[in-house]
Order: sequence, then structure tokens, then C-alpha cells
Amino acid sequence: MANDLSKHFSDRAKELRASEVRELLKLLQVPDMISFAGGFPNPETFPAELIREIVNDVLKKDGPQALQYGITEGYMPLREAVADRMIKKGMRVTKDNIVIVSGSQQVIDLTGKIFIDPKDTVVVTAPTYLTALTGWAVYQTTFESIPIDADNMRMDIFEERMKKFAKRSNPPVLVYALPNFQNPAGVTMPEKNRRRLVDLASDYDFLILEDDPYGELRYRGEHIPAIKSFDDEGRVIYMSTFSKILAPGLRVGWVVADEEILRKLVIAKQSADVCANVLGQRIAHEYIVRGYIDPQIEKIRKIYSRKMDLMLKGMDEFMPDGISWVEPDGGMFIWVELPESMDSADLLKKALKKRVAFVTGKAFFADPRDGTTSMRLNFTHPSDEMITEGLRRLGSVLNQEIVSKWDKSADDRNIEDVVKGANIGKS
Amino acid sequence: MANDLSKHFSDRAKELRASEVRELLKLLQVPDMISFAGGFPNPETFPAELIREIVNDVLKKDGPQALQYGITEGYMPLREAVADRMIKKGMRVTKDNIVIVSGSQQVIDLTGKIFIDPKDTVVVTAPTYLTALTGWAVYQTTFESIPIDADNMRMDIFEERMKKFAKRSNPPVLVYALPNFQNPAGVTMPEKNRRRLVDLASDYDFLILEDDPYGELRYRGEHIPAIKSFDDEGRVIYMSTFSKILAPGLRVGWVVADEEILRKLVIAKQSADVCANVLGQRIAHEYIVRGYIDPQIEKIRKIYSRKMDLMLKGMDEFMPDGISWVEPDGGMFIWVELPESMDSADLLKKALKKRVAFVTGKAFFADPRDGTTSMRLNFTHPSDEMITEGLRRLGSVLNQEIVSKWDKSADDRNIEDVVKGANIGKS
Repeated sequence: MANDLSKHFSDRAKELRASEVRELLKLLQVPDMISFAGGFPNPETFPAELIREIVNDVLKKDGPQALQYGITEGYMPLREAVADRMIKKGMRVTKDNIVIVSGSQQVIDLTGKIFIDPKDTVVVTAPTYLTALTGWAVYQTTFESIPIDADNMRMDIFEERMKKFAKRSNPPVLVYALPNFQNPAGVTMPEKNRRRLVDLASDYDFLILEDDPYGELRYRGEHIPAIKSFDDEGRVIYMSTFSKILAPGLRVGWVVADEEILRKLVIAKQSADVCANVLGQRIAHEYIVRGYIDPQIEKIRKIYSRKMDLMLKGMDEFMPDGISWVEPDGGMFIWVELPESMDSADLLKKALKKRVAFVTGKAFFADPRDGTTSMRLNFTHPSDEMITEGLRRLGSVLNQEIVSKWDKSADDRNIEDVVKGANIGKS
Repeated sequence: MANDLSKHFSDRAKELRASEVRELLKLLQVPDMISFAGGFPNPETFPAELIREIVNDVLKKDGPQALQYGITEGYMPLREAVADRMIKKGMRVTKDNIVIVSGSQQVIDLTGKIFIDPKDTVVVTAPTYLTALTGWAVYQTTFESIPIDADNMRMDIFEERMKKFAKRSNPPVLVYALPNFQNPAGVTMPEKNRRRLVDLASDYDFLILEDDPYGELRYRGEHIPAIKSFDDEGRVIYMSTFSKILAPGLRVGWVVADEEILRKLVIAKQSADVCANVLGQRIAHEYIVRGYIDPQIEKIRKIYSRKMDLMLKGMDEFMPDGISWVEPDGGMFIWVELPESMDSADLLKKALKKRVAFVTGKAFFADPRDGTTSMRLNFTHPSDEMITEGLRRLGSVLNQEIVSKWDKSADDRNIEDVVKGANIGKS
């Protein structure tokens, strides 16, 4: 900038920090880099030929309308088709409860806009989806982080905190839940906790934003109904996307909510981008009504299930003792816990030299002190060969790290510390 | 809503009001309705066959990448192609000064996010693009309205106001300019005023958002260089769109700005919607590099030029004395001024009964007291036959209105008032 124009930025803009994951995506370009970073679907799952067939039909039959502005709420036949699917998943909704958005990320932004005043509290898990954190941060949100365990959000701790909040003047407006194969930790919320969360929403008068990008990507166990399906009071705003079950480049997602909430959301969307791109909406619509979607989801599940198994097998083979991870029932990620003495940001630098990338845990926590010993590995994007080779590389970096810690400890500390350090390494 | 959940809405959400134009678009569905409302391009201009050819090629050749997430900045070859066009229009820029957005409306939202703190002042013209007003209102913006004349913004009044503002603690951050065939009033800013505005930006330390959706839609006179082309200090943020020169349903636009501003804008866009839809970006790119764009713009110009001439001819024929309007050199709208005694909102109700629609002037003013005697007519969307028939209907409503005012005046007032009213009617 010729002059210092940055002084014109809003206070809000100062909250804007580049997403570490997005920055890391640039690493995908480095030759021979194996990336477990990012959260990309595998392009071999994209039904390019089906999409080509659909676009040809739509443009031949209805070109002018498919290329014109659409109404902000979304293409009506797509809203109907999505409503049908949601009803089949147990939600009591109609097309009037559905709005089509420009990818489900937009719901984060729009809910921020319509619900969050500066200093309002949003409850998230620790860890949580990082672009929810960055997306709401611009609305000057205060985050309340609830730890997770194998059952996703720790309901006991959540309830305790809500009790405390109830005594304050400005209790949380919104609770953000990622019940299925959570990004990043892969953990799933059991049905009884989903029911409990809805009851608590009523007791403590808050809204739930249920983010479900991966619900269809279950590789093990039984489907669990959405939190939204237990909602009698319109307190749950459910969002999902075609990004993982069709193609992310289309930027088409949807939100299911109470009509009054949707009215506000639609007005906010009008001035944000008028409507989701219409050609993408038409593709998504035909993809459902032509019956392509379910066989395609089945195909994606098979590919990702194979990749997850390969990843878990590779983890068993190449990870040294002292490294632990969650075995998810679906989704796209493996969440890894390093020994307490290790910092995943340091590790990443060393891993990049060996041409293997991952996302450090810190990005997924509202509290910047958290997550130093965690990392997230994506298994959907790399090829099968890359999964195995990448884990081999990562294993070798980790082994060296553990050895060097041992050596360093032997030099610097007394024998008691060394034994302690080794124990940590093996825990 | 089962319960009153509306209390959870943010203060910001209370500023959200439905766009009158968007609501009116629903009228397009009523049978036999002729709509001069809306700001839709004519679907007969959409190159559906070219788009079909492009999509086939892109999906066959590069399906996986065209369906994958894209980087937030936009598809690099499209950024390069847009930069080339901008350079040809006299801007000194590179691809690094270009970011692809989800329609240019998104730039309104993103600039609001990164520049406007609550109560910050944005300077607009009166009238101005209404979805800029609604888009920035959610950021709790204070608007300063500058009147227009045949030369667009009144520079003398603007300068006077800026002098006053300079003495205050929080002078305007952003000045919003629509220099070409302004929506709604159709007026164009002369070159010397564009140069002056850039000089004033430097003197008074503000930024200019130059909104140019219609720049290519000139039907008369010579092209005038963009404000951005006179900018040496990175103070001008220029935005435009493929909506009027290709197809709006693709939702692809672009912004040209200083790199530091774009860095912030890109971070805001990341958490707003990740990236513009990639298929739409690929279509726009091929549309430029295959050389389709300029002949297509020529074709659109011919169609719209004919429609504008038809509209102006019909206005001459059917509008009673006392109605005045601006003859634009391009764009999509005719701005009409009614006699002082007439309210365009009342008129609209009567017009709708006669199956003809327009947008009332009020929507285009930040001050709700303004614009009662104005209306905006769109000439790009209706067919040629509808233009003439619609104006015949509107003329008959206006004639009746003038006659009834005369009658009412004759009943209610003394003869002096009647003569005065009649004079106003003919001015």
C-alpha cells in the first residue's frame, strides 16, 4: 500500500486471522509433498460424467432460467428434494424449513451475523472446526470451550458450565455441535447425549447449530438420528452440504431451521451474495431426483472406508509408542495425540522437510494455549500409496524426535528425569 | 417459532430489513404482470450454448479440479484474464490485485466487514444502489447522503461535507461511487469528477469503493476510464461482475484492489464461503480466453440499446405532462420523477391492479423521508412488446391519478391551489 491505509480497517478486521489450514493448502503444490493437511474430498469420487450429463440436459431444456438470478431462499425443487431427504432422516420439516446456501460455511457467517453481538458467548467443543472459530471471531464472539471425550462433547462439563452461566446477565446464545465424526477429532455424540442437548436447550434457552457435513460418511456402526430430529421447539439449526457427497467446487449447502430464523437468515444472505449459484443448485437437484445420490454416497463410503482402514493400519505399523489416536466411525480425519513433551508445531517443521504435512492441533482450539500436542491427519484426499508412504515418513520423523528427546534428556538431566521422559514417551 | 426465539437475534439482525426489490420479484410470477421492477438481465442474452460447450470441455479435460474446492483468492487463470482486461481499461494492476468473488454483491458485505465499525460513516449518493444500503446497514453503518444531478454525485456538496467531516473525530472511511449509468438514476460521472474524487480521497484520507456492474453496457457516447485508473495510492477498490456480461446465475464477480486490502478481504471471504463456485469461475475464464466475451458484450449492447430506445420512445408517448425522467447513456434503468403531489408507493398499488410493476424510489435512499416521488423502471428484462404495453398501462394509471388529483383539488381547495397543483403537474 502506497500509504498506510490499514488504519482504516475495522476493529472486526483485526480479529481476522488467516486460517492455518488454508495457508497450508499451498503446500499441496510442492513436488513430492504428501499432505495429510486440508479437508478435501478425493477428486476420484466426483461424478464428473453425471454432472456433465445433467448440465447438458439443464442447459438445453432450461438454459435461461438456470443462468438467471435465483431467489435467495434457493431453487424451490431443490428445497423440496432436500426436505424429502431430511424427512427420511427423521426431521419433521417442510420445504419452508430449508434454505439453500453457498456452501455450509456460509451458515457459520450468517448465524454469526444474525445471532452474535460483540462479546456474546458461543459454546464450542475443544477441539472444534477451525473455520467456525475464525468465522465467528469477526463478530467479536467470546468462546466457551467444552472438552471432548470419545462421546464428543463432555455433557457433564457442559451442564455444569450452563448452570453457572444461567446466573449471569448474558448466557450463551448458541451452542455449536458437530455430532458425527467431528472435525477434527472424529468423535461421535451418542443418541442419548443428543436428546439431552435438546432438553438442555429448552431448559437454558439457547439455540443449537448442528453442523453435519459428514453424516453420510459413516463406515462403521449404525446411523444415529440428527439432533434436529429431537427438536420440538425450533431451537436446532441444522446445516449440511453437497461438498462431501457430490462436489465441493459447486458451493451448494443447505440449512434446516425454524421459519422465523430462516426469514432473518435469508435477508442476511440477500445482501451477502443474493443467492447460491443457480447452475450448482440445478446440478444438486437433478443429482437427487435422478436417483444418483445414494449409489454415489455408497461409492464414496467404500473408497473412504478403505482409506481409513489403510490409515489406521499404517498408524499401527509406523507410529512409535507414546502416540495415541482416535479410531473414528466415519468422516475424514484421524486426530493424533503426541507425548506431552512434544510440540506439534515443531514437529510440523521437521515433517515438512521430510515432505509430509498435517495440521497442528492449536488451530482447532478457541484457547491458544490448547492443542500443542495434537495434530489432525486427513485420509480422504491422499492416494492409497501416499497414505502408507506418508505415514512411513511421519513415523520416521516421530521416531527421531523421540530418540533425540531421549538423547537430550540423557545429556541435560539426571537419570530420574530420563526415565520419566521415557515413560511419557510410552504412555 | 414454538417459543419466542427472536429475542436471541443480534442487534445487528434488527437492522436487517427485507429488500423491497427482492420482495417485488415475486410479482414476476403473477400472470399477465408486466414488471419494470427488478434488475434482471434479459435471459435471451445468456449464451447457454457457449456455456454448454465450455462445461463439456472443462469437465472432460479437467473434471476433478473443476469440481474441487478452489483457493479463496480465485482460479488463478481467471484472475490473470481479468487483470488483462482491467489493464486494457487503463488500470495499473497485476493478477495479485484481483480477487474473484461470489458475485459483486459479496464485495459490499466483505468491505462492510473489514472497514466498518458500528457508527462509522459511509458516504453514498441519494439515490444509490439499495442492496449496498441494506448490506452495510447490518454493520451498523451511518450513511451520509450526497445528492446527485445529471453528472452523478454532486461534487460541490460532497467537498463541502468532507470539509465539515475533517473537523470531526470519525470522518468517513468509505465513499461508495457508481460512476457509470448509476443504479437507480442512470447518471454518469464525468472524467474530471472521477479525477477530483481520487484527489479528494488523498486529501481527506478516505477509500473509494467503485461499483461498476454496467461499465460495459454503454449504448451512447464514449467510454470514460474507471475511477480506479486514476488511483496512485491504492485508495480505490473497484468491483465488477460477470452477471451482466455473461450470466448472473453463475455468481462470479471480481474485485480490484491494493494487495494489503485484498489480504484482509480474502481472510474475510475464507470464513464467509471458502471460495466462489469453481465451475462458474472456469466458465468465466474460458468465456474470456476463447474470445467469446467481446462479441457477446456487443450483442448484449445491441439488444439493450434497442430496449432503452423503445422505452424512451414509449415514455415520450405515454407519460403525461409533469412526469420527468433521465435519459441514460447505458445501464439498465430509467429513473422517473413524479409531480410533488404524488407518492410512488400509492401509485404502485394502483399500477399493480393494472398489472404493471416498478420499484418505488424510497428504497434507494438512506434517509427514509426521501424518494417518495421517484420510481425506477428496468428496461432490460421485459420483452419489447411488454415495454410498450407496460408503459401504456403505467401512462393510463398516471393520467387517471393526475385527473383525480385535479378533481380532488377542485373539490377540496380554492382555485389558486388547483392552478398551483396543475403547474407542478406540468413542470
